Amino acid sequence: MRALYIAMQAEAQGLLETLQATLLPNQPIIGSYYQAADLLIATSGKDRILGVDCIGTEPAALIANDLISNQGVTRILNAGTCGAHSSLGAEIADAYLISPTIFSHDHRIPLPSFEQFGLGAHPTPDSIPALAKELDLPTAILSTGNSLDHTTRDLEIFLANRARLKDMEGSALAWVCRQHHIPLTCLKVVTDIFDLPHPAAAQFAANLAQAAKQLTQETLRLLNHR
Amino acid sequence: MRALYIAMQAEAQGLLETLQATLLPNQPIIGSYYQAADLLIATSGKDRILGVDCIGTEPAALIANDLISNQGVTRILNAGTCGAHSSLGAEIADAYLISPTIFSHDHRIPLPSFEQFGLGAHPTPDSIPALAKELDLPTAILSTGNSLDHTTRDLEIFLANRARLKDMEGSALAWVCRQHHIPLTCLKVVTDIFDLPHPAAAQFAANLAQAAKQLTQETLRLLNHR
Repeated sequence: MRALYIAMQAEAQGLLETLQATLLPNQPIIGSYYQAADLLIATSGKDRILGVDCIGTEPAALIANDLISNQGVTRILNAGTCGAHSSLGAEIADAYLISPTIFSHDHRIPLPSFEQFGLGAHPTPDSIPALAKELDLPTAILSTGNSLDHTTRDLEIFLANRARLKDMEGSALAWVCRQHHIPLTCLKVVTDIFDLPHPAAAQFAANLAQAAKQLTQETLRLLNHR
Repeated sequence: MRALYIAMQAEAQGLLETLQATLLPNQPIIGSYYQAADLLIATSGKDRILGVDCIGTEPAALIANDLISNQGVTRILNAGTCGAHSSLGAEIADAYLISPTIFSHDHRIPLPSFEQFGLGAHPTPDSIPALAKELDLPTAILSTGNSLDHTTRDLEIFLANRARLKDMEGSALAWVCRQHHIPLTCLKVVTDIFDLPHPAAAQFAANLAQAAKQLTQETLRLLNHR
């Protein structure tokens, strides 16, 4: 079975409605699970104390692991919004497939062997470039961190790895999928040009609705493709 | 049932031997599970590609969730090494119980409500100060990040929250436990004074064996206490 992971409710809502997805009767404590025909859709769910979406790498890793270990999922698609580096030349709401690699830019572990573990450098499936061509979508390298803003050091690591898109879940999903030998396909839609003087958070808030609409359309194209 | 989470094999080895812990017959893909009498001991296990311990918040969150959701665990103890801020006046191999709070210093999400989610600020059980007194251990506030080093911004957030100990798992364990309403007790032993000019990673490597020995002794005291 394939599963689709979308971190935020605001990103997922349009797709859940279009696919007439229904909440599964047994819900986990962390995450929200929906079914739409043979597709399992997981969102990060609401934090049980604060009531906000559980964004970031820890919920993503935990939910991906549950999908694979306990829900029979053999393939994960991730659809979500992202920031783009200005050098990519992306416009707001542009869509990308992630290839060939997913990094982390906030896991600095300067010890032998652990440095590579922290960087991630998870390869995406070899089939992504052909899929991108068929869908007429560009590809880019993704880098993940648990902050919506970025420090100088975050950006140095991001650029050293030739990343151009920045999100808050990709490397966690990729790490879990890689441990289980499960393929991961990531579709990202741009909400902000994160290295502009105008803060990424303000751009994100202003552009989320537009990007989420595009995300719904592009995810439907991906789901219907094969 | 109570479980003990220890991220690194080098931290856990002495305790596993002393308690004559045995590997459980059914092992997860991520994490390693041992049984010692009525105690389930989990380590982060080895990364299946790189062969190193799966340190950091994502494996910790994922394993804590599995322990609670699928292994019948109702209480988690965490034993591990940590860095100390120089203002604490700690010596290498000093042991602390964590109270009253556990923060994250690398989850910056400057959006309404999400800022608090990123900070964590997870309260530890009210019973910890009394336990610390009985065990004659000091307490301190813990802050977690996925890097062994720290940036200026990491340190600003760390100090703003009055944290004095720094680790790579605590806030992830605390977040998962809090979602499930499961109490978490954290015991930390100092490997490095992380804000000295001498890099934390070099101190960590030099002091890990000494700290791990102390961690074994202090964890046995905690387990035998009540």
